[in-house]
Amino acid sequence: MKAVRILAAAAALFAFLFCSSPSMAAEKRLAGSKIINTVAEAIDMAKDSMPEIRYQLSKEPMKAYQGGRSNEATALNFPISKGIAGVNMYLKPGELRELHWHANAAEWSYVLAGHCRVTVIDPQGRSEIKDFGPGDVWYFPRGHGHSIQGMGNEECHFILVFDSGYFSEFATFSMSDWIAQTPKEVLAKEFGMPVSAFDKFPKSEVYIAQGPVPTDMPAPESKNPPPLTHQYHLGAQAPSVVPGGTFNVVSQKQFPISTTMTGAILKLKPLAIREMHWHPNADEWQYYIKGKARMTVFGSQGRKITREFEPGDVGYVPMGYGHYIESIGDEECEMLAVFNTGDYQEISLSQWLASNPSQLLQTNLGVTPEVVKGLRKRQDLFSNPDWQDPVKNDSKSDK
Amino acid sequence: MKAVRILAAAAALFAFLFCSSPSMAAEKRLAGSKIINTVAEAIDMAKDSMPEIRYQLSKEPMKAYQGGRSNEATALNFPISKGIAGVNMYLKPGELRELHWHANAAEWSYVLAGHCRVTVIDPQGRSEIKDFGPGDVWYFPRGHGHSIQGMGNEECHFILVFDSGYFSEFATFSMSDWIAQTPKEVLAKEFGMPVSAFDKFPKSEVYIAQGPVPTDMPAPESKNPPPLTHQYHLGAQAPSVVPGGTFNVVSQKQFPISTTMTGAILKLKPLAIREMHWHPNADEWQYYIKGKARMTVFGSQGRKITREFEPGDVGYVPMGYGHYIESIGDEECEMLAVFNTGDYQEISLSQWLASNPSQLLQTNLGVTPEVVKGLRKRQDLFSNPDWQDPVKNDSKSDK
Amino acid sequence: MKAVRILAAAAALFAFLFCSSPSMAAEKRLAGSKIINTVAEAIDMAKDSMPEIRYQLSKEPMKAYQGGRSNEATALNFPISKGIAGVNMYLKPGELRELHWHANAAEWSYVLAGHCRVTVIDPQGRSEIKDFGPGDVWYFPRGHGHSIQGMGNEECHFILVFDSGYFSEFATFSMSDWIAQTPKEVLAKEFGMPVSAFDKFPKSEVYIAQGPVPTDMPAPESKNPPPLTHQYHLGAQAPSVVPGGTFNVVSQKQFPISTTMTGAILKLKPLAIREMHWHPNADEWQYYIKGKARMTVFGSQGRKITREFEPGDVGYVPMGYGHYIESIGDEECEMLAVFNTGDYQEISLSQWLASNPSQLLQTNLGVTPEVVKGLRKRQDLFSNPDWQDPVKNDSKSDK
Repeated sequence: MKAVRILAAAAALFAFLFCSSPSMAAEKRLAGSKIINTVAEAIDMAKDSMPEIRYQLSKEPMKAYQGGRSNEATALNFPISKGIAGVNMYLKPGELRELHWHANAAEWSYVLAGHCRVTVIDPQGRSEIKDFGPGDVWYFPRGHGHSIQGMGNEECHFILVFDSGYFSEFATFSMSDWIAQTPKEVLAKEFGMPVSAFDKFPKSEVYIAQGPVPTDMPAPESKNPPPLTHQYHLGAQAPSVVPGGTFNVVSQKQFPISTTMTGAILKLKPLAIREMHWHPNADEWQYYIKGKARMTVFGSQGRKITREFEPGDVGYVPMGYGHYIESIGDEECEMLAVFNTGDYQEISLSQWLASNPSQLLQTNLGVTPEVVKGLRKRQDLFSNPDWQDPVKNDSKSDK
Repeated sequence: MKAVRILAAAAALFAFLFCSSPSMAAEKRLAGSKIINTVAEAIDMAKDSMPEIRYQLSKEPMKAYQGGRSNEATALNFPISKGIAGVNMYLKPGELRELHWHANAAEWSYVLAGHCRVTVIDPQGRSEIKDFGPGDVWYFPRGHGHSIQGMGNEECHFILVFDSGYFSEFATFSMSDWIAQTPKEVLAKEFGMPVSAFDKFPKSEVYIAQGPVPTDMPAPESKNPPPLTHQYHLGAQAPSVVPGGTFNVVSQKQFPISTTMTGAILKLKPLAIREMHWHPNADEWQYYIKGKARMTVFGSQGRKITREFEPGDVGYVPMGYGHYIESIGDEECEMLAVFNTGDYQEISLSQWLASNPSQLLQTNLGVTPEVVKGLRKRQDLFSNPDWQDPVKNDSKSDK
Repeated sequence: MKAVRILAAAAALFAFLFCSSPSMAAEKRLAGSKIINTVAEAIDMAKDSMPEIRYQLSKEPMKAYQGGRSNEATALNFPISKGIAGVNMYLKPGELRELHWHANAAEWSYVLAGHCRVTVIDPQGRSEIKDFGPGDVWYFPRGHGHSIQGMGNEECHFILVFDSGYFSEFATFSMSDWIAQTPKEVLAKEFGMPVSAFDKFPKSEVYIAQGPVPTDMPAPESKNPPPLTHQYHLGAQAPSVVPGGTFNVVSQKQFPISTTMTGAILKLKPLAIREMHWHPNADEWQYYIKGKARMTVFGSQGRKITREFEPGDVGYVPMGYGHYIESIGDEECEMLAVFNTGDYQEISLSQWLASNPSQLLQTNLGVTPEVVKGLRKRQDLFSNPDWQDPVKNDSKSDK
């Protein structure tokens, strides 16, 4: 990870010098993880119908522990999600998701409710202990050891997102499992303690353990902290505000350690639409938090799929696929969107059209210059929820 | 793409400081797209015979439209071409290959005849409108929206090359298709126009549309142009001239936005040979333009394949495979070669041999020092077409 | 490769400026070569039992030549080794492993015994000729042409390691094979020599040829040497010394051209343990040189595998898998470990535990503060071989 930081530093420096901005890392990563690599994949992509884009994560049974519980969406149960997987997890105060690491994915997380304390170590032996609350984000590079413990007096609820759809428990390594698999004689040598000291150690994986709620506040300072923090207070950052709602994004630009992932919180007023757009360099993984939404994903060759989403549902948009999201409930729709890139990018249909000559659009769409002129009106990010069809209104008032 | 530019800038700066030159991007990309990743691929590679290296693109039926037509070579119809795909396209004056983008490949193009106008947008909303003629090249990063329209008074013919063999129409997203799939009510909100305004919009994909020929010259300036242009006048660049012909190459060094592709025009005099060489970091995709050629590709383990090529044929050489090309017709042979790297690299057999001690070559080849001494003569790029076997000539003159 | 050098230079500069260290290259590479990419791979990874981690390379039959011999471990005969392959090779004095290149892998090598002379060329035409002895390392980037010849008066024994498990002879291109496959008329034009000059050239692949032992010392200087040398004297570098043995590592930091690989020589005293640790960014390929060892690899979900190793055996640890190695013979155990990254990284269990609060470890392990306090004792890299269980000793002395 040192190298990533160096290059992040290099990128930052050059961004400063040349008025440009970051992140070849993400671009490179895509080449491996999301580009089609086989004839079978190419054929699969060319099916008449679109793959399912919704997974009702919260309706799936949860794996329960002493007090914690979780379930997951991966490429195995949600086939479209090849580039990103997610986990829904709850920890009661004092509940500890034990020390563990992921062999094949980095972890990005957003806290929805409650509080937790996180510990993490990097390959240079630098560690960090931080407390998280609603609106906070963490990022752990692939393979770095970490733990999460519920704090305060209410259950902590957070969404974990991984930069591989093939993240799985079979590549999640728990400390207690490793200890349990290791002969006491080896542990004795490893730690320089009597063999008998290990008699009461766990005999199998702990996964989630109940312990006392941490009360030392703030979290103890590390003696050897990492140069880049693993924590970002997304909730404390002022969002972009548009007539239709708000958009709050955290990429590598704001959160330098997060080289392979970007996250965003969208709040859409009733009837607002997150406009038609696509992401040229990343897949999008969504978790619906509040309200109701309807998303349509366009898959080229006349293919599209539309689904309605409610809180607890997961949505997915493959890299480059066009999409838009309608807020269809009576209350504001709130959702988390996570991308497998540290360099957030989007291209919006309306901005694209506006950048082209009128004559070209007339030819492309077979319409008059007047229609093209109208088309060029551009809203920021979301459509205006108060918008009403002037023709319909007129015809109504006529009657 | 900002990041790519930053690093291109960094690379350029360091290239300047350290007298070195660009492009890790390509190197990295290879890791994902062309390295063997499965046992099945390894076994496939070890077959007794070489895969077919020729695809007669121009002899395949073309998909025809109002006035445009095209066909393509991809890994599906030309299995060896896993790393690069190509399309042969014609547009009559005014014919518009509509606004579209490719979800899984960057596009590199070379104009063979006629003229066209191109529009392109990037994720920062910066756009460019440029006119192209014979010898011009464009490059569009993966996922960036673009269009192409025939201009002037003759048909425009160009070759599109993509940095994935799995490029396909099922990952090509057309603007009109998206509009056609979207309810008028959504479009009305998206653009702030009456629902009825969309009554006459396309009901299905347009793909290629006939419109008036653009007459505003030069192309209108963009209000928000990108820092790196998408256009390169390869035809205006002076080629390397050797006795056997000419070689004109455009890599990321000359054309900074082209981070994942390099192109070259080769002209070989009759009887000249593009010498024995290989490319350690890229596949090679070829389109034969004029004359006749014979290419032999060496596949290790005693395997080779030889094919003759005529105008309109496509040839392919996998990364690292040895090859040479003979000009076998009565007229000059002209060909386009495109590589899936921004950093052009080759190693030639004669230069390699010349860098080794005579004693080593004597041992390796079982020949005398005199033969080795003769071997060291090196031609640049192409053999001399006027070369004649001195022994044969002597024996002839003896008779 | 120029780009790699530039970025290595950039990385080095920034490392200097920001007190950090190298190598995004490796990080990027992983994305392509070792991350799970398909459902089939994910399911394969989730099997109840661990894949075999030992391959008895030295006990397999060798491919024999005039005087040289070799055999190999690849993903085809040793399925776990997807990310790294290895070859065991012997050359008698004067025996030449002929000029060749590998289309799909970089080559890293460690000389165990004897001497050899190596030649190598890069795509810029820069070449190097160097002599190697025991403890020396070479690195050739993917696709670069090279040769190896035995020198001195004893057989040279070296281990070749490749940064792809799918390295194979079917992607190894020999110069003589290419020459043999090429018509004499083409060779005549290529080199400007009479056709008859090629009458006595090899008719098939030479692979290993017997020649005179090179006697010109030192090796002739190249007229056009590369900016980064391909040679590193690992044996001349002072190792880290700990009570249990020594550890000597060469990564891109010490050996800048080695952007995709790191190697290390470990010497473990009898009874010492290479402590519990994992590598978050690379696979590990091992060759056992001396003594006896027992390695246990932990695969998560209660899975582990333990094997004993003797000289000539190969061991493998996938990226992120926990492992430890016990020296179990009467003499020192010496082994070579090679990683498919230029940026060496490890996380050790004891250091990880020591970075966490006592309370957390009490909860995680269900043990008392006193036990946790004992756990924090940390040894460097290897356990102390003189360690004895104090309880056992006490009970013995009691009797």
